[in-house]
Amino acid sequence: MHTIDFEPVGRRGKCPDGESLLECGRRLNVDIVSICGGMGICHQCRVQVISGPVSGRTPEEAEAFSEQERGRNCRLACRTWPQGDVKVHIPPESLSAPQRTQVEGLEVEIEPEPLVRGFEVRLTPPTLEEPASDERNLKKALEGQHGVRAGIVDLGVLQEGFPKIREWGWKLSAAVRGNEVVALGAPATRWLGLAADIGTTKIACYLVDMQTGKTLGSRGLMNPQIAYGEDVIARIYAAGKGPENAEKLQDLLVQALDKALGSLCEETGAVRSEVVDAVIVGNTAIHHLFLRLPVLQLGRSPYVPALSSALDVKARDLGMELAPGAWVHLLPNIAGFCGADHVSMLLATGLAEMEGVNLAIDIGTNTEICLNVHGRMASVSCASGPAFEGAHIRHGMRAAPGAIEHVRLSAAGLQVQTIGNKPPIGICGSGLLDVVAQLRLHDILDSSGRMLPHPLVRPMDGSREFVLVEREAEEAITVSQKDVRELQLAKAAIRLGIRALCEAEGLQEGAIGHVLIAGAFGTFIDVESAVAIGMLPPLPLERYRQVGNAAGTGARLALMSRGQRLEAERIAERTRYIELAGIPDFSRKYAEASVMDAR
Amino acid sequence: MHTIDFEPVGRRGKCPDGESLLECGRRLNVDIVSICGGMGICHQCRVQVISGPVSGRTPEEAEAFSEQERGRNCRLACRTWPQGDVKVHIPPESLSAPQRTQVEGLEVEIEPEPLVRGFEVRLTPPTLEEPASDERNLKKALEGQHGVRAGIVDLGVLQEGFPKIREWGWKLSAAVRGNEVVALGAPATRWLGLAADIGTTKIACYLVDMQTGKTLGSRGLMNPQIAYGEDVIARIYAAGKGPENAEKLQDLLVQALDKALGSLCEETGAVRSEVVDAVIVGNTAIHHLFLRLPVLQLGRSPYVPALSSALDVKARDLGMELAPGAWVHLLPNIAGFCGADHVSMLLATGLAEMEGVNLAIDIGTNTEICLNVHGRMASVSCASGPAFEGAHIRHGMRAAPGAIEHVRLSAAGLQVQTIGNKPPIGICGSGLLDVVAQLRLHDILDSSGRMLPHPLVRPMDGSREFVLVEREAEEAITVSQKDVRELQLAKAAIRLGIRALCEAEGLQEGAIGHVLIAGAFGTFIDVESAVAIGMLPPLPLERYRQVGNAAGTGARLALMSRGQRLEAERIAERTRYIELAGIPDFSRKYAEASVMDAR
Repeated sequence: MHTIDFEPVGRRGKCPDGESLLECGRRLNVDIVSICGGMGICHQCRVQVISGPVSGRTPEEAEAFSEQERGRNCRLACRTWPQGDVKVHIPPESLSAPQRTQVEGLEVEIEPEPLVRGFEVRLTPPTLEEPASDERNLKKALEGQHGVRAGIVDLGVLQEGFPKIREWGWKLSAAVRGNEVVALGAPATRWLGLAADIGTTKIACYLVDMQTGKTLGSRGLMNPQIAYGEDVIARIYAAGKGPENAEKLQDLLVQALDKALGSLCEETGAVRSEVVDAVIVGNTAIHHLFLRLPVLQLGRSPYVPALSSALDVKARDLGMELAPGAWVHLLPNIAGFCGADHVSMLLATGLAEMEGVNLAIDIGTNTEICLNVHGRMASVSCASGPAFEGAHIRHGMRAAPGAIEHVRLSAAGLQVQTIGNKPPIGICGSGLLDVVAQLRLHDILDSSGRMLPHPLVRPMDGSREFVLVEREAEEAITVSQKDVRELQLAKAAIRLGIRALCEAEGLQEGAIGHVLIAGAFGTFIDVESAVAIGMLPPLPLERYRQVGNAAGTGARLALMSRGQRLEAERIAERTRYIELAGIPDFSRKYAEASVMDAR
Repeated sequence: MHTIDFEPVGRRGKCPDGESLLECGRRLNVDIVSICGGMGICHQCRVQVISGPVSGRTPEEAEAFSEQERGRNCRLACRTWPQGDVKVHIPPESLSAPQRTQVEGLEVEIEPEPLVRGFEVRLTPPTLEEPASDERNLKKALEGQHGVRAGIVDLGVLQEGFPKIREWGWKLSAAVRGNEVVALGAPATRWLGLAADIGTTKIACYLVDMQTGKTLGSRGLMNPQIAYGEDVIARIYAAGKGPENAEKLQDLLVQALDKALGSLCEETGAVRSEVVDAVIVGNTAIHHLFLRLPVLQLGRSPYVPALSSALDVKARDLGMELAPGAWVHLLPNIAGFCGADHVSMLLATGLAEMEGVNLAIDIGTNTEICLNVHGRMASVSCASGPAFEGAHIRHGMRAAPGAIEHVRLSAAGLQVQTIGNKPPIGICGSGLLDVVAQLRLHDILDSSGRMLPHPLVRPMDGSREFVLVEREAEEAITVSQKDVRELQLAKAAIRLGIRALCEAEGLQEGAIGHVLIAGAFGTFIDVESAVAIGMLPPLPLERYRQVGNAAGTGARLALMSRGQRLEAERIAERTRYIELAGIPDFSRKYAEASVMDAR
């Protein structure tokens, strides 16, 4: 009997001899993805063995991994049998929901260099002979004991923190940002930071220890603004209708963040007043709605942001309850449809620093793509729409338990994998992408995207639909011709964006050395499927890398490092924005990008 | 028939030959003070003839004025007959209420060097080719057209100002503070500043043109916190009772300032969003209550302020509605009972710059005194109490119409002058001072302050009272032995303060070259009376100068000049605070200071 540690989910349990990592994980409720059911065929259950003895590599695995991956001890969980105590890392793309959320991302190691630092100080009780004000007393202690010159004490700190100085017996912990005291606490307070990536659909929040940089907890939640429209255009018009609306839209985000922070605090034994810094990223529209900036101009040519530079604003000015003097940092926007989340993704992936020709793509309701050609950076924004979130799809649903997330059609028939291995109730974005790719690979779709006759295809409303799952009491789960068209619109927009960037540089797509795929959706798609329908170019698969929520990771980097904030500004400054609607021959190129072929 | 201009009250009217300036003023409802009724005896109706021909100087005037004053064309209004069109300046101390308020003060000329400056800019409408964000567009215009690098645009400006950029046709006026845009307005907006002196009892507000430095209007009003106690100690305990109380006390001040600003705006055709800067001064307790800082430690030894340094805080953080990004500047405090209003008074009087040995004194509910001995500055604070405001005095009242403000006892009998020449209804601070001085000069009080028998003195409750005015239907207006004691306490505290300062420097009071008397009350007292009872030292009268609300003037100086703000910090830094309660031989010295003699 061996002990197995599954990371980063933190599940640990016993594994008898003869049980594979996949079987062990399932028994311990660690939902590792597997479509083929453990036959070594689907290559979805990829894990990394960190330590401990395991069985030797199988022939199936030789095929599944690149040499580099083999060197990192990457294995298929279904083909790996522990032979002692083992520690395993499960990458996000191999985890099925609900463990998988939009919060997992790159873990990039950086030297903590936070703007806000904590200092333990001891004040001198005043006397009639030396009646120093509490504020002078604190400043003197900071300078004398730590060489820190804090010229400013935030008003909130004077109001909320100073009344406690005597309670603390003149000993306390001070959080200092540059030359400003932003919080006071009892001695040895653990100061925290909040990073958040606010997407059009989802929000990811991280609570970080400001001294070590360690992420103490994370939360994923829905963006409650969805009640005002699924895409940002709808919300722009909603906010533009009047100040109450704009306030409401802002308030929804502030409350959502506050709720997430509340549960993160509960989980980690923290309190809001210990959160001394925050970094928040989002696309330009969300960024503007969060700050309650004017947005109507974002929806009209020439689509300019009100604000593009990075911004520091007091948390209280946004209605956020953090430490009394806490600031919130917003990364810069590049253009009206290329926002701080894109900059954050570029920061986390390190695309700007990579040599050669490389592409980074953040797939979501809106998809932003950046091409770095020997240091020249250009970005486009593509309206990929909400199909990936399951919206406007007949049996579409979000990536939640019971959603069909992976599909394979083979001689053995149709295999579907649902999130959490629950009975299927609908189909999520990655499942839809898989279905359409399988249909195309088996010529049930032609290259124009038209559905052809097949035993599993049946007529529907004058068109056709493909039956994915027959159910006894309920109607079948199907993919209709219209669903295929929705996905086709999205894939055409993305492919057009990639081609436009290459064309602007006079390059062929084949010249791209690496493609970094970020974003909640991008993390979980099958890249082969995306290539099969021509959403992504037909590059060797090893050039693709799925990096999880890179925008969230970028926010954490900026939270922990002033250098990373400056780097984000440099990235925004040097990245040229190309307006897709303005490229020559737009219609022809769009039609070409719609073709459902791997080419 | 001549035309007479009375300034600064701005009253203009006709004056027939043979009518004196006093008679003319009264006919035109310009209430010039006169106790003797125009006999040239009381010397209260002092005015300055600015231009135009008048009758020659009378012997009474030779006696009333110093050579310097005669050189400035100072005259007694009752002894001056116009001989053509004349312009007259009435100093505040010669004006009876209600024209006279606590807002009049020194008019100190300074070169405007405000922190906030206005710039007219023209933006370039963005295009698809040049889709600059509004914020970049504004920054570029400011730099290109004015060489101003504004790195920060306040969030409030982004929220409230940016939506109007297109309405204004890309032309606008920007108010910039250092590197921060704090307001936007239509082209040619007149940017304004607010200066306020918040006293324990009264508030003075000034609306200032930020370009010219001209005071456009002023308002005096009562401090509504009086409901929570007449002195600051009572309010400190009220605020210390709980956060709601502290909030209420803050809110009362914010609302009072807002109301005053509202009527100033109405008067001058301005709006709140044009007010881009503010400077507020008050004593330490009021300063803390206004900022909602902890105050309980102010009431306990060693009486330390929470905050002594100057502070800049966003107006919105105080709940003040000014321009979206406006800051409020608070001058530094020196000690728990020596606050920003004292620093402001020192700034306005220029005491720190004067050569030799000079004293400045701000008389109020609390009296602060500063002695400058060849550049060495030291201050004391004396609890002079509310007697000067008419509180705790049997027939006391504030300086309002009907209050007896001046009293003379002579062979001709008792003469009283009321504010507004209304029938007497009570006695205000300067009236009380006059009565007590007259009683002492006529030996109706002995040097210990005991009331002696006299035709106008009658028994009252086992003690005595002096009958000032008999009235038919109502009881007489009197000054009781107890009233005399109240004033005596106040005068002793002040005189003790002056002596303590001199003693600390090893000086005799006679060495003092100039005494500058500031404050609402100090403006209107008769210095001779104050000297007669030993409240002020028996220096030649020409060494005394009454300077009006110098704290309000200092606030205006700081509003208009960053140099003056730095000077205020230097003054606070170099002024030593002497705790009166801690001086050696306190009791004996206090007893000496109580003696009611001019010595």
